[in-house]
Amino acid sequence: MHKKYPEPIVIFMSLNLDKIAATLSGLEEEIIYKMINRIQFRHNPAIYQSEQSGFTPKEEYSLFDLRLRYQEDMDSQFGRFSVPEERPYFKDLSPARRPVPPVDSELHLVDIDGVNLSEEVRAAYLKLVPVICPEGEDGHYGSSVEHDIMLYQVIMRRIHYGALYIAESKYQQNPDQYQSLIEKKDAEGLLKLLTREEVEIKIYQRIKHKVEEIQKDVNTSLRILLDPQICADFYKNTIIPLTKKGEIRYLLQRFNNEVYL
Amino acid sequence: MHKKYPEPIVIFMSLNLDKIAATLSGLEEEIIYKMINRIQFRHNPAIYQSEQSGFTPKEEYSLFDLRLRYQEDMDSQFGRFSVPEERPYFKDLSPARRPVPPVDSELHLVDIDGVNLSEEVRAAYLKLVPVICPEGEDGHYGSSVEHDIMLYQVIMRRIHYGALYIAESKYQQNPDQYQSLIEKKDAEGLLKLLTREEVEIKIYQRIKHKVEEIQKDVNTSLRILLDPQICADFYKNTIIPLTKKGEIRYLLQRFNNEVYL
Repeated sequence: MHKKYPEPIVIFMSLNLDKIAATLSGLEEEIIYKMINRIQFRHNPAIYQSEQSGFTPKEEYSLFDLRLRYQEDMDSQFGRFSVPEERPYFKDLSPARRPVPPVDSELHLVDIDGVNLSEEVRAAYLKLVPVICPEGEDGHYGSSVEHDIMLYQVIMRRIHYGALYIAESKYQQNPDQYQSLIEKKDAEGLLKLLTREEVEIKIYQRIKHKVEEIQKDVNTSLRILLDPQICADFYKNTIIPLTKKGEIRYLLQRFNNEVYL
Repeated sequence: MHKKYPEPIVIFMSLNLDKIAATLSGLEEEIIYKMINRIQFRHNPAIYQSEQSGFTPKEEYSLFDLRLRYQEDMDSQFGRFSVPEERPYFKDLSPARRPVPPVDSELHLVDIDGVNLSEEVRAAYLKLVPVICPEGEDGHYGSSVEHDIMLYQVIMRRIHYGALYIAESKYQQNPDQYQSLIEKKDAEGLLKLLTREEVEIKIYQRIKHKVEEIQKDVNTSLRILLDPQICADFYKNTIIPLTKKGEIRYLLQRFNNEVYL
């Protein structure tokens, strides 16, 4: 006798600001740890060259793109992309093989894929690898690409979670001003309204501090260190700008949109 | 024009004791972080019940075993199990689709699968989940099982890496005494010779301290805390005993074995 599969549960995603901040902070640490794991291996540029995966039969994709594709195809079958903040890079993935309970998220999304910055994140990630990793080849292609995809996926989650939930919570705090800019499709005005420079500066400082703390007892003769400034700069030049780009995209599609997803 | 796929590189795995200790310490932190990630979700017992995955078409496996199988099948195609310390639970996985460079590891293994404790680790893992997670259901089956497999895999790596490399380095430090016990197939004598209680106690203390340090600034109203004692006990009752079981298995198959893998 097996127990019955339980009734679908509606997952409640709160817009509580402290909860959003705690989630973002947890993702920050995951990004740092996964970055530290990746840089224990060299850049291994062959991983990123198309047709050079070494796969039999031969594949057009790079080893990086192949791993991303296999990972996303598996994730898709398990229902990951039924969640708004989990977006795929590849478009032609296998369908979900299991029902995923509806998420009561307070988000206003016409299309679950209304905000998908995977192309931008992938391009930024590929630029990041040679900046954080020791240069050259060490032959650890399998481990490198495994850590690549784990790191890429958590950066993706951080950016999309931020884009959707921060934007919606800011809107709810100040609906009139946001609504008027949204109606005028004023992307620049939205960027100005949602930017809080003093908060951003605190984030960069916190990240530098976290990277330093996490590595403070590391044996530097055996482990490669992550430069705290480079990690903070990645937030400054990539994660925060892409999050804001996503926030604007979310807000612009919110116009006249009464669909709750 | 694409660059040629580089010539296979022989990966050198050093038996340097400091390097082994540093790797084990890194895996320790990965285990702690992944445990903390998993316990943000409830136990969700439905995940572990066979035939209850909710998959269409229906699958005999539990959602946990399905995820493990998909993950291992992907990993196998990327060549993960060509590495001695990466062992699969499932036996009938797809073959590797890419050549993996030979590892010059100083290990003496007749069969790459000569030490495979996946059944023991899986059973211990399934017992661990209800001990560390808040009880009951929250509907986050997809995320829970994703974190499950990440945590299970790093525990596996820790145990097998330890079993193989610690055993070989201990043997090399004291070959005569080990060889005589191996020839007598004296598992109990081997257990006694390789056990260093004072080192083990230091490990448990270090783990407790790491769990406390990692969580010291956590907002407890938003994040579930990992009990440092439970984590140390998991090392004491599972990880260390299974590592030693693996060490003995490795040493016993080392008899008259001149094959370097």
